[in-house]
Amino acid sequence: MDGEGVVRITMVRAARRNALSREHLTQLLDAVTEVGDSDATGIVLAAEGPVFSAGHDFADVAGKPVAEVRSLLRLCTELMQTIQDVPQVVVARVHALATAAGCQLVASCDLAVAAESAGFAAPGGKGGWFCHTPMVAIARNVGRKRAMELALTGDVIDARTALDWGLVNRVVPDAELDAEVADLMSRATRGSRASKAWGKQTMYAQLDRPERDAYATAVEVMAAASQLDGAREGMSAFLEKRRPVWTD
Amino acid sequence: MDGEGVVRITMVRAARRNALSREHLTQLLDAVTEVGDSDATGIVLAAEGPVFSAGHDFADVAGKPVAEVRSLLRLCTELMQTIQDVPQVVVARVHALATAAGCQLVASCDLAVAAESAGFAAPGGKGGWFCHTPMVAIARNVGRKRAMELALTGDVIDARTALDWGLVNRVVPDAELDAEVADLMSRATRGSRASKAWGKQTMYAQLDRPERDAYATAVEVMAAASQLDGAREGMSAFLEKRRPVWTD
Amino acid sequence: MDGEGVVRITMVRAARRNALSREHLTQLLDAVTEVGDSDATGIVLAAEGPVFSAGHDFADVAGKPVAEVRSLLRLCTELMQTIQDVPQVVVARVHALATAAGCQLVASCDLAVAAESAGFAAPGGKGGWFCHTPMVAIARNVGRKRAMELALTGDVIDARTALDWGLVNRVVPDAELDAEVADLMSRATRGSRASKAWGKQTMYAQLDRPERDAYATAVEVMAAASQLDGAREGMSAFLEKRRPVWTD
Repeated sequence: MDGEGVVRITMVRAARRNALSREHLTQLLDAVTEVGDSDATGIVLAAEGPVFSAGHDFADVAGKPVAEVRSLLRLCTELMQTIQDVPQVVVARVHALATAAGCQLVASCDLAVAAESAGFAAPGGKGGWFCHTPMVAIARNVGRKRAMELALTGDVIDARTALDWGLVNRVVPDAELDAEVADLMSRATRGSRASKAWGKQTMYAQLDRPERDAYATAVEVMAAASQLDGAREGMSAFLEKRRPVWTD
Repeated sequence: MDGEGVVRITMVRAARRNALSREHLTQLLDAVTEVGDSDATGIVLAAEGPVFSAGHDFADVAGKPVAEVRSLLRLCTELMQTIQDVPQVVVARVHALATAAGCQLVASCDLAVAAESAGFAAPGGKGGWFCHTPMVAIARNVGRKRAMELALTGDVIDARTALDWGLVNRVVPDAELDAEVADLMSRATRGSRASKAWGKQTMYAQLDRPERDAYATAVEVMAAASQLDGAREGMSAFLEKRRPVWTD
Repeated sequence: MDGEGVVRITMVRAARRNALSREHLTQLLDAVTEVGDSDATGIVLAAEGPVFSAGHDFADVAGKPVAEVRSLLRLCTELMQTIQDVPQVVVARVHALATAAGCQLVASCDLAVAAESAGFAAPGGKGGWFCHTPMVAIARNVGRKRAMELALTGDVIDARTALDWGLVNRVVPDAELDAEVADLMSRATRGSRASKAWGKQTMYAQLDRPERDAYATAVEVMAAASQLDGAREGMSAFLEKRRPVWTD
């Protein structure tokens, strides 16, 4: 449904609002890692039920010692970073409310498409456990004042606001969500897979860094990448005015 | 007027366009520090007169040696950083023009509400003393090209443009300014005060840093924060389906 | 045409879509460096032909060893950084499509004005050679999700979208492009040239850095800058209620 070579990973713990329990985080990490090692070109991260994901499962945290909570948060961070590390393009398919670490998941995907029914929040700020780690990802998608508003108020923003603030790439009527995800994914997976994988990983390596440091990295990678089969084929095809054939 | 537990700090040097003289910077720093040490939950930073604040008082700078100007700028920077360090939520109430270090004040507050009559500028760029330090704060609220435009042209942007660019969180008709400030402040001060204070401070510690460094900080803080009374109460209340009672 | 003291540098390799060959990069770098050493106040970077610039010339890259490609990319990076280093205000005049390193040129200029016919893309992502170095500059102008969309899809965004995302400062009908460039340039070149040059250079030095590091730099520069003739004249004129006369 999401296109050839695209694998969908779906959270199906609707009764628990797709809470990111230790068990569910492990399942997601295993799934993303497994597809990451495959020759798939894209991953759609989706969910079933009335909520996209409500974030951490408080049953994993309430009354637990700091070492146990730290290990849970490290596992959660590993999932977020693995989404950025895998060679596939990862698109979040957000059909409903995404809160706390659920919103962090959306922020951590390469791209995101939201249905008009979707909403986004970092509710820890209006409770007792601030959304410290979700805000690492969310603040890197939206501006500073908007990040502070999400973090401090805990209020939900709707899908249109999320689009305006840069947290998602597309907003469509609910009925068109799958079609829009498929369209964006097909656009985002054209070309040489090996080239794009290195491109995506280098993007995350250079963002947030001083521009000169970023250039130092990007120049080395781009020079090396010019030697890849995909680069050679793309340039030859362009110069010979024919369609390229991607073998990697 | 701004809500229970909220302290308003008002600049009342209208005849000097609320210029941030050394004396006035010291007064503001003392006021913010004093409220910071209190059990207040929020600070509204406001001003009286036809201008919110015109920035530095040239009488403090003209003809002064570099050491004296440096000490003035360090004092100003200390005020900006103290606003970010205090445990309270700090909301700028911008009723009129905020320029140079006056615009920096708005950029440095956690949140900002502007009246439609407000305006924002970094006029040093069209004069003889560039707004170097104001642009540190302003550029971290708006995009790069927009920061350059403000800095190089010195032109005033109106409140709607400031909202579009992310420099303020809300724009309302002048007559509704106090009501909107109170509404945003009440939303931003819900929940455990101790949790939110640590949250706000950690946000500023992780912003502008490479994502992996930011996660390293946020994971440690969030694990430790799970042991706070507020976190325990919030999670217990959620799991027991009752309203939480915040004691810190 | 662009105003007194403003020099226009125009790419006139229309038949090659203003591709940034090694030769053309060298010409542009020489031109920017030469104007940079002059007493000009502004530089307009323009192009002739149906395309603003299509980026690298594949004839320089296809089949070349990594060392040769690295040296080409270093030359390209040097051009981008020189645009930021020169004391002049640099405005991109974008009349048509700017892709890959051509889009990077726009992103690297201090300010940019686009005609409605302009478009922007980083097409490497849909080919075989990812736009690693162009994305260093482009991602620092737009949000993260938008940068990923440009990089991964390779799709063209129109001028209005580029304005909304912060990649350009103004969009006007094609016929008004020169007038708008002249207007923005005249606004951006008012005041002391020496003060503004230091201001622009300090902006690039402090952006992307943790806020405290940025302040450490900006405080020192701004204190020193208070001793410049321009700063003294500006403040004296203000305090004496007369028009300033800029001598540097």
